Amino acid sequence: MSGKKAFKPKARRPRGFEDKPASVLRAERRLIEAAVKVYDAWGFEPLQTPAFEYADALGKFLPDEERPNEGVFALEDDDGQWMALRYDLTAPLARFAAENFQDLAKPFRRYQYGDVWRNEKPGPGRFRQFVQCDADTVGAAGPAADAEMIALASEVMRAAGLKDGEYVVRVNDRRILDGVLVGIGASDPDLRMKVLRAADKLDRLGRDGVAALLGAGRKDESGDFTEGAKLPDASIETVLAFLDSTGGTRGEVIARLAPLVSSSETGEAGLAALTEIDAVLTALKVGEDRAVFDPSIVRGLGYYTGPVFEAELLATASYADGQPMQFGSVGGGGRYDDLVARFTGQLVPATGFSFGVSRFAAALAALERGVAEGSEPLVIVLNLEKDRAADYLALAAELRAGGVRAEAFLGGGNMGKQLKYADRRGADIAVIIGEDERQNGQATIKDLKLGAKLAAEIEDNRTWREEQPAQETVARGDLVKAILGRIKGANG
Amino acid sequence: MSGKKAFKPKARRPRGFEDKPASVLRAERRLIEAAVKVYDAWGFEPLQTPAFEYADALGKFLPDEERPNEGVFALEDDDGQWMALRYDLTAPLARFAAENFQDLAKPFRRYQYGDVWRNEKPGPGRFRQFVQCDADTVGAAGPAADAEMIALASEVMRAAGLKDGEYVVRVNDRRILDGVLVGIGASDPDLRMKVLRAADKLDRLGRDGVAALLGAGRKDESGDFTEGAKLPDASIETVLAFLDSTGGTRGEVIARLAPLVSSSETGEAGLAALTEIDAVLTALKVGEDRAVFDPSIVRGLGYYTGPVFEAELLATASYADGQPMQFGSVGGGGRYDDLVARFTGQLVPATGFSFGVSRFAAALAALERGVAEGSEPLVIVLNLEKDRAADYLALAAELRAGGVRAEAFLGGGNMGKQLKYADRRGADIAVIIGEDERQNGQATIKDLKLGAKLAAEIEDNRTWREEQPAQETVARGDLVKAILGRIKGANG
Repeated sequence: MSGKKAFKPKARRPRGFEDKPASVLRAERRLIEAAVKVYDAWGFEPLQTPAFEYADALGKFLPDEERPNEGVFALEDDDGQWMALRYDLTAPLARFAAENFQDLAKPFRRYQYGDVWRNEKPGPGRFRQFVQCDADTVGAAGPAADAEMIALASEVMRAAGLKDGEYVVRVNDRRILDGVLVGIGASDPDLRMKVLRAADKLDRLGRDGVAALLGAGRKDESGDFTEGAKLPDASIETVLAFLDSTGGTRGEVIARLAPLVSSSETGEAGLAALTEIDAVLTALKVGEDRAVFDPSIVRGLGYYTGPVFEAELLATASYADGQPMQFGSVGGGGRYDDLVARFTGQLVPATGFSFGVSRFAAALAALERGVAEGSEPLVIVLNLEKDRAADYLALAAELRAGGVRAEAFLGGGNMGKQLKYADRRGADIAVIIGEDERQNGQATIKDLKLGAKLAAEIEDNRTWREEQPAQETVARGDLVKAILGRIKGANG
Repeated sequence: MSGKKAFKPKARRPRGFEDKPASVLRAERRLIEAAVKVYDAWGFEPLQTPAFEYADALGKFLPDEERPNEGVFALEDDDGQWMALRYDLTAPLARFAAENFQDLAKPFRRYQYGDVWRNEKPGPGRFRQFVQCDADTVGAAGPAADAEMIALASEVMRAAGLKDGEYVVRVNDRRILDGVLVGIGASDPDLRMKVLRAADKLDRLGRDGVAALLGAGRKDESGDFTEGAKLPDASIETVLAFLDSTGGTRGEVIARLAPLVSSSETGEAGLAALTEIDAVLTALKVGEDRAVFDPSIVRGLGYYTGPVFEAELLATASYADGQPMQFGSVGGGGRYDDLVARFTGQLVPATGFSFGVSRFAAALAALERGVAEGSEPLVIVLNLEKDRAADYLALAAELRAGGVRAEAFLGGGNMGKQLKYADRRGADIAVIIGEDERQNGQATIKDLKLGAKLAAEIEDNRTWREEQPAQETVARGDLVKAILGRIKGANG
């Protein structure tokens, strides 16, 4: 280490990765804590799978290929097996459930949060490592388990500090669209996928764009042409009617969908699932404002087999120029009955929900919601007399024993430099005990937050300097009490 | 996903990685929470660096080599740069501090916890991913900062639920041994490293083994010969006297060391550091039972430059056969003034402490200490009438609203199977509402924990079946209250 070679590496973090500062971490951790508290209360148990999975277990490596797909960070272990960092928490859960299926008490209800990695081209705000927080139920086939997931998601939104009306969980069942497709004679799997992909673009391309993709095709602004599903006009109208059937109460949406799926068993099954989900949500007191049925919700992932849901923030914040900041989806999930079967061949019903923690926490911070609040007030004891560090440290310990976040300054420099440090740390109070104070048995409390506030108000520089309104000198014996008084005042 | 190829991967986790179950995760998280609470109170701020670093920034890749050292999990990014997963939290901190040095308020006090990865041969209980929890101060040169770290470490031991006397932080300063080596004319760097390595083996090889390694060399049980440092006998005696100087108060150790280092400036500096550390520890009320001076503490890592410390568990548990289970070191740290200089060329003082979370939590669990406690009592509502899932889920919600952890069973099967599930989940209470109960406006509470206890006591099978002492039927309207009463009783 101590440099036999003169090589000096450049200090930089890898492309697409971030160092998370305290404010972001605190918000993310509080959000996770809030979610975990809900998951625990609902009877879910924590599980933590490792960062690595075998690439084939992630579905990212087929045996006739030389190395795993792009999209994951993969490396060859010393026994020749390819491992990859997990890109979500669902694929590892499926591996875990398949590996331990006989030994698990089923339904298996677990939550997990942690980093996931995607080997994608980094860009501004696009990171290759981010945090997800999932809850899943493996081994429960009925729509009641999906409804519980939806209720759980809306409960987490509340626990995160949102008011009802500031969020909504949008719910659909993929089989309803399948039923619609059967009705219009378009049940071929490739065609189904084309229609699903077109429907998923409603938000971005609007009704006309989706109609084009369902029909002859669509040319985008750059002139690129996407081939369409080539449905006849009447079928396109049926699909659009399906996408339009959102709005109003859950019961109203079900009523609108009923005639569209009546000719298909799959469609009827999807509608029956929504009907039971509605009943359970109502029993769980998840009102019409917290969970709505929205047939335009498709969710990109191919593995969903029935109900799908998405948690969306409706609350908006404003950019500095007054433009509204919209947050959109912060999580989603659904039923994926085939994922464990990939390993075992045996169909295992499963349903789950996943939050994007970083995205959600950032939105809550912009909205100035509970979990995004700052840290406890901080007191910094200045270190003004050489060889008295022990005294200053002991004073900080005394303050901590009184319940106050406190540290003694341990770097070098004069009082000005130390006050600047306290300021940059966002400290609330600096304690000044120099030689004079010590000899007089006194201590000076400098209220940095109050000082900053008063400095903005007082224009007369001389008044400021002479009166020092945010500073008081007290007897050393009264110091801790005086600081506790100020901090409590600032808190209360 | 839905299987165009018939390839079916085997569900297994990669070699050397573990799936952590709820009990382990809860213990680890509570330990981290306890430590974080201390770090926060002491004015440290959270930071989270990414899992990946460039391999050269970790010191694991030199430019004239083709790929990074073994020991880390490394892969080549698509721009040809080698990245590696961090193997500890100190190297990433050094990179971060070097990269952001101008912008940091110094001293920079941060804590970080998270997974680290080592590409080592896996074995029983030896994993390639584990959790560390570190606190560091970058930019404070004096021994007061080291003393604060030692005090912090002993405070975390308390926060973890240990009593004073059940743990100790052992402290040394590497420069003292350097001083001893100067005194015996053995200050050559290679020789110094040999002596350090020999001294580090005192625990394992004992006094005679170390003496052999300091002298001609040592043959181990397998017949392998390790060449010795070839010190003359008088010098070996001095080194052993140094290693023997532990025991008694911190002041007594200092007094014993003083004559051994008097001929060296480095040694004197080390002794002066211990003297100041003692003063600060005393001011911080860290008694002689919580932190001791122990010159045999060396710490393996090459990058330490002065004070080093190790947190050791003294409490023991017992194996089933009555043999004592000893835990030893659960963390360590020290001063590493050269680590940031690797990047910048500029010396930056730094000191820190790192806990091995998994190891520490496992020890606390074996000791049955606070942070290792189980989860909240769980109530499981059986799902006995088809199509009434909504009612059972609503009852679980009602219990949660009353502050009880509760879920409704959502799998299939009869009452026996569902009770078995409740048992395997470790539930405290099962709620039984079948058709009869519903029609009579009643509910049956089955106290599973009490039942298990009584079953062990009651020998008469008939009494058991007829009296069902751990079971009571109440009016549906009194159900939640009755359960709350039982759970509170069980808790209080």
